[in-house]
This record gives sequence, structure tokens and C-alpha cells, in this order.
Amino acid sequence: MAEPKGNELMDKIVSLCKRRGFIFQSSEIYGGINGFWDYGPLGAELKRNVKELWWRRMTQQRDDIVGLEATIIMHPQIWKASGHVDTFNDPMLDCKTCQGRFRADQIDEIPCPLKPSNSVSQCTGAKTPVRNFNLMFKTNVGPIESADNLAYLRPETAQAIFVQFKNVLETSRQKVPFGIAQVGKAFRNEVTPRNYTFRSREFEQMELEFFIRPDEAVEAIGGIVASGSQPSTLNPQPNWGWEAWHKYWVEARIRFYENIGLPRATLEEYWQKPEELAHYAKACVDILFKFPFGTQELEGIAARSDFDLSQHQRFSGKSMGVFDEELKAAWAKLDETKKTELSQRYFEARFKYLTKMGEPADKAEKQAREDVAGLAKGNYIPHVIEPSAGVDRLILALICNAYAEDQAPDEKGKLESRVVMRFHPRIAPIKVAVFPLLKNRPELLNKAKEVRDLLRPHMTVFYDEAGAIGRRYRRQDEAGTPFGVTIDFDTLGEKPELLNTVTLRDRDSMKQDRIKIDELVPLLLEKIR
Amino acid sequence: MAEPKGNELMDKIVSLCKRRGFIFQSSEIYGGINGFWDYGPLGAELKRNVKELWWRRMTQQRDDIVGLEATIIMHPQIWKASGHVDTFNDPMLDCKTCQGRFRADQIDEIPCPLKPSNSVSQCTGAKTPVRNFNLMFKTNVGPIESADNLAYLRPETAQAIFVQFKNVLETSRQKVPFGIAQVGKAFRNEVTPRNYTFRSREFEQMELEFFIRPDEAVEAIGGIVASGSQPSTLNPQPNWGWEAWHKYWVEARIRFYENIGLPRATLEEYWQKPEELAHYAKACVDILFKFPFGTQELEGIAARSDFDLSQHQRFSGKSMGVFDEELKAAWAKLDETKKTELSQRYFEARFKYLTKMGEPADKAEKQAREDVAGLAKGNYIPHVIEPSAGVDRLILALICNAYAEDQAPDEKGKLESRVVMRFHPRIAPIKVAVFPLLKNRPELLNKAKEVRDLLRPHMTVFYDEAGAIGRRYRRQDEAGTPFGVTIDFDTLGEKPELLNTVTLRDRDSMKQDRIKIDELVPLLLEKIR
Repeated sequence: MAEPKGNELMDKIVSLCKRRGFIFQSSEIYGGINGFWDYGPLGAELKRNVKELWWRRMTQQRDDIVGLEATIIMHPQIWKASGHVDTFNDPMLDCKTCQGRFRADQIDEIPCPLKPSNSVSQCTGAKTPVRNFNLMFKTNVGPIESADNLAYLRPETAQAIFVQFKNVLETSRQKVPFGIAQVGKAFRNEVTPRNYTFRSREFEQMELEFFIRPDEAVEAIGGIVASGSQPSTLNPQPNWGWEAWHKYWVEARIRFYENIGLPRATLEEYWQKPEELAHYAKACVDILFKFPFGTQELEGIAARSDFDLSQHQRFSGKSMGVFDEELKAAWAKLDETKKTELSQRYFEARFKYLTKMGEPADKAEKQAREDVAGLAKGNYIPHVIEPSAGVDRLILALICNAYAEDQAPDEKGKLESRVVMRFHPRIAPIKVAVFPLLKNRPELLNKAKEVRDLLRPHMTVFYDEAGAIGRRYRRQDEAGTPFGVTIDFDTLGEKPELLNTVTLRDRDSMKQDRIKIDELVPLLLEKIR
Repeated sequence: MAEPKGNELMDKIVSLCKRRGFIFQSSEIYGGINGFWDYGPLGAELKRNVKELWWRRMTQQRDDIVGLEATIIMHPQIWKASGHVDTFNDPMLDCKTCQGRFRADQIDEIPCPLKPSNSVSQCTGAKTPVRNFNLMFKTNVGPIESADNLAYLRPETAQAIFVQFKNVLETSRQKVPFGIAQVGKAFRNEVTPRNYTFRSREFEQMELEFFIRPDEAVEAIGGIVASGSQPSTLNPQPNWGWEAWHKYWVEARIRFYENIGLPRATLEEYWQKPEELAHYAKACVDILFKFPFGTQELEGIAARSDFDLSQHQRFSGKSMGVFDEELKAAWAKLDETKKTELSQRYFEARFKYLTKMGEPADKAEKQAREDVAGLAKGNYIPHVIEPSAGVDRLILALICNAYAEDQAPDEKGKLESRVVMRFHPRIAPIKVAVFPLLKNRPELLNKAKEVRDLLRPHMTVFYDEAGAIGRRYRRQDEAGTPFGVTIDFDTLGEKPELLNTVTLRDRDSMKQDRIKIDELVPLLLEKIR
């Protein structure tokens, strides 16, 4: 039996997601709303597990990252500073015949609404010139609708982290290098949402902004900046500059994906070419997943220089700088040649940033000189490495990766095809299902409920007493439940030596082992952690 | 020393929240944005813990509730069906002199912008008539801004649950009675946000919709509906009607609050009077907390009849009914008198609802007769009990409740005043702090880091080596960290009998016990669960 691929596979996945309650179309009973998707009971658990693991890896299991939970609606000036108001656009044109509005770069692919066998570009109707359409959702805050109280739904979670950088720094006892992590909703008014949940208008992000010293500070303190070659360990070193930190995060993030069940072979790293980079970015790596509809981005890991904090300093008039005691001490001990060299490099970087942002040369020079003077006293604006992941596309990747069809024996041992979601136990929505062998035997039900209540404080348990046991297994295979516990007459002591034992079934191998009830909790905890 | 109260207490709480990174003003460096608040590192952890506990209690620890995670932007028709488009309004008027817009019911309290010593109502400027201002934030979906693609940010999470009711029912193997739970952001364009985070424009809700049989179905099946007196147990019974279920949820929710550290004495139940109830509601209880600024609502628990699902059935044209095998079987066995009596009651309820919603009497009568015929075949639209809690106001309640000032000995044993956040260990942002006694002794640091790494997989740990130990305790007291572990020379074996023991300090009693390192994890897990 050939495994399904491409569109056929996607159709099966979409159908399973609906049938088993992973994903529903938002507002379905009202005909849906394009680009919005809801997570049903299994999808909601899956998503929670993934977000929880990311959060724990990022914050609780490290000393050097703390969390933040900021609002979706923020001060509109933030999006001026970030560049979103001016440049977060899609090029659009209108067709004067059908009145439709289309993405100018997609008119060759989009079918004409009046004659779908043609593309929009083949339609002879007059078109308006291409105009830029901003992708941020707009709203108004307060009782009067006016330009004065225009606000946006955040198109990314990152900016809140930059805006609260100083508050977090001052209250969390952190020092550069350190990071701030956030998980939350973001919104982009995509003109053409597509590929199921992959490109949605409402989506969730998991973003880390990891703040580091500028290379000049690293060099002043350590004498040398670690070379840009792949860091040999995942143990951060004091002499790491942006390049080593960037590679560290690329590696750490790929390990995260492997850790939740995406094999490295399903992932690709794409290192953006210099001409593809945003002007302030020093490097950007996309981590791609091989979806059935093509290889597409899960996460971008960008070395963003000190652009973001610098922008907010300029726009808010509030300092985004930090004072670095070690740098101050180290700088004082540098010889003059080194001081000059580092000062010159720092000056050039700051001057380049300021003029790029439109500051007049004389003003930029003055400011950059002040920045250099600050550096010598231990002050700088931190640089940033940003691993930015999309939760919904990751969930879709995990679902696509988990989907499998194979053969399983039915009640009578005859092979039948089954669909099985091979989620890593760490992220599986339900960890274990508990089945009494027969429904009409109260002693089996009571014992099964005892086992359910034993497991429940530790993990998500699904109790199912209805239907043939094979059918119940099949249902849990489709839900991706890695373990099944069956309570039978031996559990009750029909064979005395098997009293208080159960069968533990493995979803993938379908192997069944006989386990003592007392050993279930530690055994399962070991497997799901 | 008198404990601070009222405004003085609130000022201290607000100051602590900022100083320690619980809560920041959103977009603070840009002057803030009225009615929006961010959670800093400690606040974000606190909030996560509370949401996680609610979710686990609701979904993972029960068989009869499943989760949902729906979008914030949904089909606009939903808010017509729910009544929010037509009736979710504040009465507003404009002053023609100052051009300000004010809530009509607050003009006696709001100061005049031009002459703040007067209230708006005392200003002699001409006022417009009172008009209704809708509290939903508006936006547009798609590239064209028009009435056709107007959408709203959800003002509550509940409606998504109703809209996806059938999808969830059909995919989750649940039967009425069962519930659907959701946690997520909601938005209300409040004219006058106030009381710190209590009334915000962006906030988070934890809502459960618990679907039950109509009383007529309960009676048909069980012969009798349990009396409305307080259910004597928290074990649901098959003969519970809406009144018993409603009381069950009031009690369950109060126990939840007690369980996370709000003593029953800080809470009040307010049973809405018949004239205060929405027309479709049969009962509504507000659970109030005694905030320093007054006793205010944390959660409302409403018995909403079958209003919500009925509305979506009418507006979407899709059936929101369920088929209940047990009811069908039971109905067939009823005597004619009973059938007539139950049919009559069900007819009256359906007819009342339909005419109240503006259906003409003849159409309403026809529909209600069909509904009665459906009931006899086991079909009905479920009724709903809705426990709806505000996360942000709960966090504020927990912070207010935790705040305490007392006396603690300093390094030399002299009493000094301290601020201590007495969070229940279950919700405390950081569970345990690990302190090496001295920073300049590598053997202490190494041992302390070993202990940190031992605890970290199981709980949130804060490692702190900087400053006098008393000062470090004080910092954790303010953060609300319930336990402190200190590694000293005895840990390293200075007194051989104390080798590999540490002191475990209790935040509240400040008592210190000597504990074996091996026993730390189970001991602490016991206390934080």
C-alpha cells in the first residue's frame, strides 16, 4: 500500500483533523471566515503541550531567560518605530471590471472571479496601478473613531519585548546576555490565506529576543571574539559574539524540534543570502519543514543587530541602553590602538544605522560619537538574536509528520488498514487511554476507573468503555494516544499470578506488555517526559 | 504597625507590581495606552499557573469536560445572534463645549476637562442626547474596508463554544451533560477603564459552558428533578436539573478559589435578584472578592437556559439539537398525563423564548409544537450553566490577598519590616530559590548549582548568589517564593553529620529546617501540588 503524498495526503489530514476534533474552521456554522481556524479538544491539548514545552525550555529550565505576557493592542507609535506602518505592505491592484482586489505578485496564479479558467492577469479588464496595502488589522480605542485613537492588532509579539526591555531588565536581576520570551496571538490581514492553517490571519507566535553584547564589547572584555564557525558546544562562552550566539540558537531550536518528534530529515536550514537580508540584519536562518504542499518556514532565527532597541530609543526618547560593569573595567585597561580600533568599528555601525534611518549626516555623526563615548564607559544598546516560531504552522507540521497509515489486526486477527497519529508522547494530546475489556461487567468498570483515577493526577487520561476493544484501540490510534491500558479478568485475579496487572499497549508497535498497576505511573511518566 | 488598607494599600500593591515585575503599563515608554496592562516575568508565571490549574481542573481531571481554542475574530453574525451588536452598549453623550464624550451614567462623577473642579454634569455646555455606544472593538478583514467585511474582536470567549458545540459533540465522544472549556483573550472598548487591571480593555477569560438536559428531559428519565436545595455532595446525580447543576458549579468554583489561596472569608456570593436577571437567565450568582477598592466580581455563574444555542440555531439555520437515546426510551414509557404535563411545560418555555425574540405568535407556536414533538423523540437543545471567570481580576485578587507586611529579623537579628507576598505555593511564580551562602566560595556555588539542577526539572527555581543572605531572602519574600534552600559549609560536610543537607526556609513562618538533599524533590513536590 503506497503512503499518500502531496494533495492526497493533505486531504486526508484535513479530513482527520475535522473528524477527530483537532482543527475546525472558525465560525463554521455561519459559513466560516477565511483565514481563521479553531482548535478542537485534541488540537487544543496538542497546542498547549507544545507551547508549554517551549516555555519550560526557554524560561523555567534556564537561568538566563524570563517570560513576558503583553497586550495585543499596544501604542500605535510602536509600529512606526518597528517599520510596520510604513513597510509592512502587500502590493495590490483592483480590476475595474470585476471590482476584485488582488495581490499584484499573484495575478498570474489567481483565477479571474468572472471567468475562472483564466488568471486575473489574462483578464482584459482595466486594472488600477499597484498600491501598497498594509497587513495590520486596524481598530479604534475609546468611544470616538478618529485618526487620533487608531490602533493596530499586533502583527508580531516581538515588539512588546523590545518596548518592555528596560522594565524587565530592571526587575528581573538579569544581565546581558539574557533573553525575554513570549507566546501569544498575532494578526496579519493576509490577502490570500492558504495551505490550511499554515498562513492564517490570526495565529500564535513563540518568540524569544535574546539580548547580547555588541561584538566590540565582547572583544574589549575577552580580547577576542569567538570565530563564526559552529560553536562546538551548546555551552555559551563569554567570548561569543553575535555569530556564535546566532549559531547556538539555530542549533538549540533544531534540537527542540527533534525533541518533540520532528526528525532532522524532515527539516531544512535555509541561510538567507546577503541580498535577501533586511538592511539591519546580519544573518537570518529559516528552519523549514517538508509539508505535503511544499517545504515551508516554521521559524526564522535572525541576528537583528541593535536595530530594534535603537528604533524604540529614537521614537520614544527613552534610553534603551544598559550599563555593563565588566565592559567599563575592561575598556579602561585596553591599549590605545585597541580602543581606537573598537571605537572606530562601533562608530561606523552606529553611523550607518542612523543615516540609514534618515538622520542627517551631521546629526548622525554627533550621535554616533556620543554612542562611542558611552561604550567606553560601559554603556551600549544590546544586540539581539531572535528565534521566532509560528505555533500554528508547527502544530500543522507535527500533525503532518504524525500521520501514518499501516496495517493492524482486527478482532479476529485479520489485517485491516489503520490511520495512526504517531505523535511523540511528550506532545500527544492524550497520554494514555484506559479500557475495561467489557462494558457489561461492573467489576471491570470499577477497576478501570480506579486505574484512571490513579493516572489522572499525572497525565491526560481518556477513559473509554464503549465498543469492541479493537475499535477502541483504533480510535485512540487516530487521536495519537501513545499508550493504552486494558483491564481484563486477569487484572481481577482470574489467573492469580496476574492479579492487579494490566496490559499496556504501545500505539506504534501495537505490542502489549503485562504490567503491574503499581508500576504504571512511574513507567508512563518516564515515557512521556 | 497597622496593616495598610484601601487606597494606601492599593498604592503599595501597584508599586510592588511595577518594582518586582508583576505588572507593567502596556507601551509605557510611549506614555502607555489606557486600559492595557502587560505582565512582567513574575506576573506572567503567576498567570500561567492559575490558567493551568483551571484548565487541569476543568478538563484533564474530569471525564465530562473538553477544551477548545477558538479565534478572537469570528464571523460577525455571531454577535448579532448573541445580542452583542444590538445591546452591548454604554449610554454616551457629547459635550458641545469641550467636545468630550462621556458615559451618561457617570457625568456626575467625571470631572469636566475644562474645569476639573466641576463634574461634567455641572458644566453648562450644551450636551447631545444620550446615544448608545457599542463596546466591541471593530476591524475589517481583507483588503477592502467596507461594511461587508466588518468584524469584531470577541467581547467574550463564550460564543465560540456555542458556535462549535456540534463539532465538539460529534468528535469528542461526549454526551449531555458535558462541558466545553476555553481560556483566551477578549476585548471591550470600555469608556472608563479603572481600578488598575480590574477593568481593562484587553483581558483574559476562563469560561466553561456546561451543557445539561432541560428539566423536562430529566424528569421524563428520572421521574423527578432533584430539589433546588444545595446539592449535598459534589457528585453529580442523574436527576439533577438546572438548579442543582447551577449550585454544583457555584460550590465547585468557590472551592477552586479556596484551593488557590483565596480564603472563603475574602469572597462573597451575590445571588442576582429576579429583576436583575437577563430575560433568558434562570439564575446568576456573582462570586465577589473584597478588593481594597471595594467588593467586586471575579466570576459570574449563570443558568442561561437554552437561549444561546437556540439563538445560533435560528441565526445560522443549523441544528443545535442533540439526540438523547435515554430520553427517547424513557418518554415512550411515560403515562399520558406525564407526557402532557412535560410537553406543556416545554412548549411554554420554547414559545416564550421565540416570542421574546420577536417571532410572530403563529410562527412561534408552530415552532414550539415541533420542538415538543422533537422532545418526545429524544431531541432537544441543551441548556447551559456558565461559570465565567476573569483571569486578570483573579490575578489582581491573588496579588491583593497575598500582600502582607510584617517583621523579620535582619542579619544581626534586629527586627525590620518586610513585604511578603503570601501566594499559595500552587500558584507562586517561583517555587523555590537556591542560595549558596557566600558568593566567593566556588565549592558553595558548585554545590548550589547542583541542587538547582536537581530541582529544575520539577519546578520553577530561582538561583541567586548575589548579596547578603538576608537581602536575598527579602527579595524572594517580595516575589512570593514559598521556599528557600541555602547551601552552607555544613552542606559540604563541615559538620560531617550534616553532609549533603541544606536549610529549607519557609517564606511565611521564616522557620528553617535541615533537610537531606535527596529528600528535597519529593518534599517540595508535596507542598506545591
